[in-house]
Amino acid sequence: MFKDGDVSVSARLRDVGAGAWQAATGHPMVKEMAAGTLPHASFRHYFEQNIAYLEDYTRAIAVALSKAPDTGALEVLGGLLDQIISVELPANRRFLERLGGDPARVRGVLTMSPTTYSYTRHLLATAELGDCAAGITALLPCQWIYGEIGTQVAGAEPDDPIYADWVALFGDPEYAKLVGNTTSLLDRLAAPDQENLSRLQVIFDTSTRYEIDFWDMAYEPSTAQSKMTRQ
Amino acid sequence: MFKDGDVSVSARLRDVGAGAWQAATGHPMVKEMAAGTLPHASFRHYFEQNIAYLEDYTRAIAVALSKAPDTGALEVLGGLLDQIISVELPANRRFLERLGGDPARVRGVLTMSPTTYSYTRHLLATAELGDCAAGITALLPCQWIYGEIGTQVAGAEPDDPIYADWVALFGDPEYAKLVGNTTSLLDRLAAPDQENLSRLQVIFDTSTRYEIDFWDMAYEPSTAQSKMTRQ
Amino acid sequence: MFKDGDVSVSARLRDVGAGAWQAATGHPMVKEMAAGTLPHASFRHYFEQNIAYLEDYTRAIAVALSKAPDTGALEVLGGLLDQIISVELPANRRFLERLGGDPARVRGVLTMSPTTYSYTRHLLATAELGDCAAGITALLPCQWIYGEIGTQVAGAEPDDPIYADWVALFGDPEYAKLVGNTTSLLDRLAAPDQENLSRLQVIFDTSTRYEIDFWDMAYEPSTAQSKMTRQ
Amino acid sequence: MFKDGDVSVSARLRDVGAGAWQAATGHPMVKEMAAGTLPHASFRHYFEQNIAYLEDYTRAIAVALSKAPDTGALEVLGGLLDQIISVELPANRRFLERLGGDPARVRGVLTMSPTTYSYTRHLLATAELGDCAAGITALLPCQWIYGEIGTQVAGAEPDDPIYADWVALFGDPEYAKLVGNTTSLLDRLAAPDQENLSRLQVIFDTSTRYEIDFWDMAYEPSTAQSKMTRQ
Repeated sequence: MFKDGDVSVSARLRDVGAGAWQAATGHPMVKEMAAGTLPHASFRHYFEQNIAYLEDYTRAIAVALSKAPDTGALEVLGGLLDQIISVELPANRRFLERLGGDPARVRGVLTMSPTTYSYTRHLLATAELGDCAAGITALLPCQWIYGEIGTQVAGAEPDDPIYADWVALFGDPEYAKLVGNTTSLLDRLAAPDQENLSRLQVIFDTSTRYEIDFWDMAYEPSTAQSKMTRQ
Repeated sequence: MFKDGDVSVSARLRDVGAGAWQAATGHPMVKEMAAGTLPHASFRHYFEQNIAYLEDYTRAIAVALSKAPDTGALEVLGGLLDQIISVELPANRRFLERLGGDPARVRGVLTMSPTTYSYTRHLLATAELGDCAAGITALLPCQWIYGEIGTQVAGAEPDDPIYADWVALFGDPEYAKLVGNTTSLLDRLAAPDQENLSRLQVIFDTSTRYEIDFWDMAYEPSTAQSKMTRQ
Repeated sequence: MFKDGDVSVSARLRDVGAGAWQAATGHPMVKEMAAGTLPHASFRHYFEQNIAYLEDYTRAIAVALSKAPDTGALEVLGGLLDQIISVELPANRRFLERLGGDPARVRGVLTMSPTTYSYTRHLLATAELGDCAAGITALLPCQWIYGEIGTQVAGAEPDDPIYADWVALFGDPEYAKLVGNTTSLLDRLAAPDQENLSRLQVIFDTSTRYEIDFWDMAYEPSTAQSKMTRQ
Repeated sequence: MFKDGDVSVSARLRDVGAGAWQAATGHPMVKEMAAGTLPHASFRHYFEQNIAYLEDYTRAIAVALSKAPDTGALEVLGGLLDQIISVELPANRRFLERLGGDPARVRGVLTMSPTTYSYTRHLLATAELGDCAAGITALLPCQWIYGEIGTQVAGAEPDDPIYADWVALFGDPEYAKLVGNTTSLLDRLAAPDQENLSRLQVIFDTSTRYEIDFWDMAYEPSTAQSKMTRQ
């Protein structure tokens, strides 16, 4: 598919999966967030689902970390794990509170929508059954898409302070640096033979499509009713 | 919820989840299979998805078996694993061939529908992160629902020999015995306190609902196009 | 180390690790078993440890099977798992009973010697953290060494019927066929690059040395006192 | 064994395993470290093994974290993981350099002694096959024993600055606080029924005995030759 050996594994994965990638990074919800026009109810629902998502995202990072082949890989994945636990989860909880929600009512799989559940099962099962590179590949689209969105929205100055603060969080250049650590690690660990690249592409594209599904779900709060415990 | 200590854990799980359970065991597709009126295209699509499903079902049994706490649990789960590999998968491949399909074109996650993928990620992630009882609880609805369907359709004598053979496979009393081994094992391993039962109920109901989704997907072959590798 | 691309991965692993391999296959205890001169107490102690070992060996096979990349790999590992549960464990329990022991007193890690515990932790952790080929590599020396011992002792006709029956079990050509299935699977799955071969060699040699340690422990029943629950 | 329901799970585990516990916390090597009389060669060998140990300790924390049942458990285990990666491993590498060693020559299982290998396989396999409480129980003796040693040696002022710095690191009250977080988490997660306590006791005592073995190995540098790659 690619003949240029100079293209890194991570760049290939993104480029081959460009269709889904653009649908994820250019989702209408993102535009409404940058414009500050998204209804608060949708944003609140987004954080309710995202907190549950990020807790399982942390667990999936941990599984990939348990298979880290060397010191450098331990450090990158340890840094990512700490970023989610110490920075992003607390920030998400504060956003939810400001929007009138209650982080204590987020209770893991019990309050996940079917989309959040499927996405997180994909992350966890891929990290458990695959090697460290497979786990990182599953985790990467989430982190990287937010990095791209951060760059996109960096100029935006929505009037609504909640949206402004959200833009500031992901528009921070420090965030882009963390993305670079993860892509560099994947580029180092992933064997670049065609068979392995095909295998990783399926994992990568699946995560990207789940990102779209996640935006869709958050954008349509009516789906919020269909919790895993529905019956 | 239940006061009667004499009700086994497995019976409670099924009874509390009765709504989804009846929707799964009484699905219109099952009735058409017993009557022999289901179009061959739908039945073929079912087997294409079911073979990929059963291979991951085997992997999830293996994960639960790796946490089997004693000799008896090893033997029951080893028997279930062998049944899928030595009996059900070969039978499914033969059915697919008789319907004009090609088992060699079933290629794991690459040819799974999104429903099959989500369901199998649920099985694998639950078995990986939970204890042996949690894994068995995730695996149980599939096996048990087929046992109930077998009992339901046991009297049916569809003219179409493919449907007749399918009825014979699951109507066999030996199959019911295997279901009994699994429910007895779960009843022995699962702590019957309310907190644990609630946790297991979510797992059990999730699997039951995925069974319904699986029938729905197979019943509507148009969804067959949306493979995991779609883009 | 090797330049000949025609040598299979499994043959390379055994040949590079030839020193430990010969110490394991030519252990004095094996010779006394073939001659029927080993004290019954040593043989009984061997079975007490071996039953606990084989139960965890089964669990480690299951972990490797959960990562089997395709149908063929599922079938080979499923066959090996079934062989241990349905043939070898029952045979080991009967040998133990004939020697005056009680299989019900074998209680997993609670009755393992430190050697049996270390060896089985090696198998389980390797299968959990590595890919399917790494897991198979850890499991292989045990199966293969018994195959070689079976060939060695096949002519032996010890007077003591217990030793004669043991010789018959492992001298059976069917056993050799199962070994061939496992080595062929490893040869197919393991990437033959030098980095991967070095990694697999460490795993393989570690298992081989644990085989020696296991014979040593069984040969010297005095070490039987040091159970994991010693204090 | 215990009738007092007020005794926490962690305190029970330590008290029931008091024999091994005292042998670990009162090991002669610790006394020589506090006195600053331990030969540098022994201390260097200790760090070479401890760095490889801590990298797998981190992996085992990650496995336990992947099974953390709630937000609080994620945070405690995330804090422990970060402490090892961001504080203890860098400190260990600096100590090794000051003693004339080279952290780059520490290469995971390739440079582990058999004791370090067995201990880390125990941690990893226990975390993989057990629940979150079982994993924490395996990890706890290492952290807690160093906390007790820190308290013991806190008054010591060895002349040799390397030993003085080591005393300062573990004598820091912040370290004791981290131990308290882990014991409190275990006390909250572990079911206090006798069956579960017995199961956890075996895990806890096994780790404690491996701590003794680890000190023994480090105290006798002659055993340093027997690397996993010996042959």
